[in-house]
Amino acid sequence: MSTIDATIRGIKALDRAAERDALARLDALTKPPGSLGRLEEIVARYAAIRGDAAARIGRGAVLLFAGDHGVAAAGVSAYPAAVTVEMLRNIGAGGAAISVLARRFGYELMVTDVGVATDTSAAPFPGVRYRRVAAGTRNFLDGPAMTSDEAIRAVEIGIETAVEAAGAGATIIGIGEMGIANSTSAAALLSATTGIAPDRLVGRGTGIDDAGLQRKLAAVERALRLHRDQFNGGIELLAALGGLEIAAMAGACLGAAAARVPVVNDGFIATAAAAVADRIGAGVRDAMFFSHQSAEGGHALALAAMGARPLLDLGMRLGEGTGAALAMNLLESAVALFQQMATFASAGVSGKLA
Amino acid sequence: MSTIDATIRGIKALDRAAERDALARLDALTKPPGSLGRLEEIVARYAAIRGDAAARIGRGAVLLFAGDHGVAAAGVSAYPAAVTVEMLRNIGAGGAAISVLARRFGYELMVTDVGVATDTSAAPFPGVRYRRVAAGTRNFLDGPAMTSDEAIRAVEIGIETAVEAAGAGATIIGIGEMGIANSTSAAALLSATTGIAPDRLVGRGTGIDDAGLQRKLAAVERALRLHRDQFNGGIELLAALGGLEIAAMAGACLGAAAARVPVVNDGFIATAAAAVADRIGAGVRDAMFFSHQSAEGGHALALAAMGARPLLDLGMRLGEGTGAALAMNLLESAVALFQQMATFASAGVSGKLA
Repeated sequence: MSTIDATIRGIKALDRAAERDALARLDALTKPPGSLGRLEEIVARYAAIRGDAAARIGRGAVLLFAGDHGVAAAGVSAYPAAVTVEMLRNIGAGGAAISVLARRFGYELMVTDVGVATDTSAAPFPGVRYRRVAAGTRNFLDGPAMTSDEAIRAVEIGIETAVEAAGAGATIIGIGEMGIANSTSAAALLSATTGIAPDRLVGRGTGIDDAGLQRKLAAVERALRLHRDQFNGGIELLAALGGLEIAAMAGACLGAAAARVPVVNDGFIATAAAAVADRIGAGVRDAMFFSHQSAEGGHALALAAMGARPLLDLGMRLGEGTGAALAMNLLESAVALFQQMATFASAGVSGKLA
Repeated sequence: MSTIDATIRGIKALDRAAERDALARLDALTKPPGSLGRLEEIVARYAAIRGDAAARIGRGAVLLFAGDHGVAAAGVSAYPAAVTVEMLRNIGAGGAAISVLARRFGYELMVTDVGVATDTSAAPFPGVRYRRVAAGTRNFLDGPAMTSDEAIRAVEIGIETAVEAAGAGATIIGIGEMGIANSTSAAALLSATTGIAPDRLVGRGTGIDDAGLQRKLAAVERALRLHRDQFNGGIELLAALGGLEIAAMAGACLGAAAARVPVVNDGFIATAAAAVADRIGAGVRDAMFFSHQSAEGGHALALAAMGARPLLDLGMRLGEGTGAALAMNLLESAVALFQQMATFASAGVSGKLA
């Protein structure tokens, strides 16, 4: 059995007994029932995913995957493709937004090059893991972004990274990415998985101008026509539309779900990975939290199509797992309340009037 | 000159130069301009309020004021009035939601009894400060909730507490409250200040049933008719409609603004205090962040009427400053990004394509 198949089979249903017990404790705490709103909901879901009514929490880990996209050559990004490798160095060196947040929250930041165009593995950047599948994807306007084997390998790397994080004690995993032009790939993937029209999904990404936005939309529409026979399975979708880092994030979702570790999704591109993971392995969605609604055009629509309600709406559109990290911190606050608040009985506080 | 007048005169305009400098640095950081969304907005505003382009951050403090309400006798709350003093003990002892969050985030929690019905000052609760103005307000259905002198004294206590917190190094102050029946008082105050009809503002508070909700609405409508000649000034409003803890929160807003310390507002009841503070001292609004949109019925309407955009929308309706604490933590994350991220120049990352 392949790694991916074995992982999918390992995904268990939510533990409804743990969820019920957690909800009962939440109602016993010194607050009106339900008054912590979505904080109560995420604690109960965390307990259900972990299979642990006590909602014990260990370390958080952010899994960031970087890769380049052949479609960048079509002029779909506001930044040159060289920024992927430059930002890879910056992230590893601690200067990127996710570096700051991971440090602040005490999360392990696992940064993996799965396919950056420039190979720096001979003189490796500090803080970067090298699991390179290819030197970027091919331009999906000329053919598939990658081979099926490459897509499978990238998904496996995501699974392996999540399993490693869980083995090292992570009880919550955020996913993030870096890759110039990857919002083009993500828009195509989200259109293919949700059926939402490209013109409602394509946005300005890192801030492309009007002409670039038209090129980006044209590229997505053309790719969807070109590859429309490949939209049956998740692996086929990834091979057709890319990218390597999106495939790895999808794998991380599968690996974390199988390890009963909640996955906190990030923005537009991570949501494409989540949509593909959902296509590969049913049940993976149950193990996911959706961190935030990105300012990127179609993210709200994509989330709605997936029945996902994001926790935060801060107009962010940076990626890297920054939204995920903020939501993980919120979940940890919710768990702290759950574990540390007094109960009506222990504090001698009167209950509701009959 | 009275303490209140002196405080109002001390409120300075936002420092637009500091704000501009902060915005310029935000654009130099290794991220697409504006891609941190509202996190960038709050850093720039923090710099403008503090008058500090470096947005240096010290300690956070949560100022929680507790008081009882005579109108509780009208059966407007789901909980008995005794819960105010019981929760005062619980908060001081570290078992309440705000106790947990303040501990987790390292905030000083200053809990002040400004008017709880039961006087516990002779055998004081640990962690509670006693600055009692009265043993609760009077029922505003029978006359004014308090005298003008009592309202002034409660506002002064709020000012003094904020000034004390700022003097001890707080650079950000959250406000919160505890007081059974205080969402009734808050609904009346918000209707009087914003002009929104009571039936759109009155909500279930801690979870009152349908019959109680009708009693609550009737009480607010009757109070607004009874006291409609007192709606000219903030102090008059507070005296007519209460409560002591709301007056103290309004004072805290004024005192913090005068000390150039941003105030993070909490939910429905704190928003009533903010609306009154705004009536007392023009400019205080500029020093405020609005933390979250409460699940309490009319909060969204009241925020909109005040032109306030909350940072979080988590369906919370607990009060105590819990929403404020979460938003303060978010602001601290934003400031960490601002201060610790690399710039394009320092990290050698290419800028946008021309």
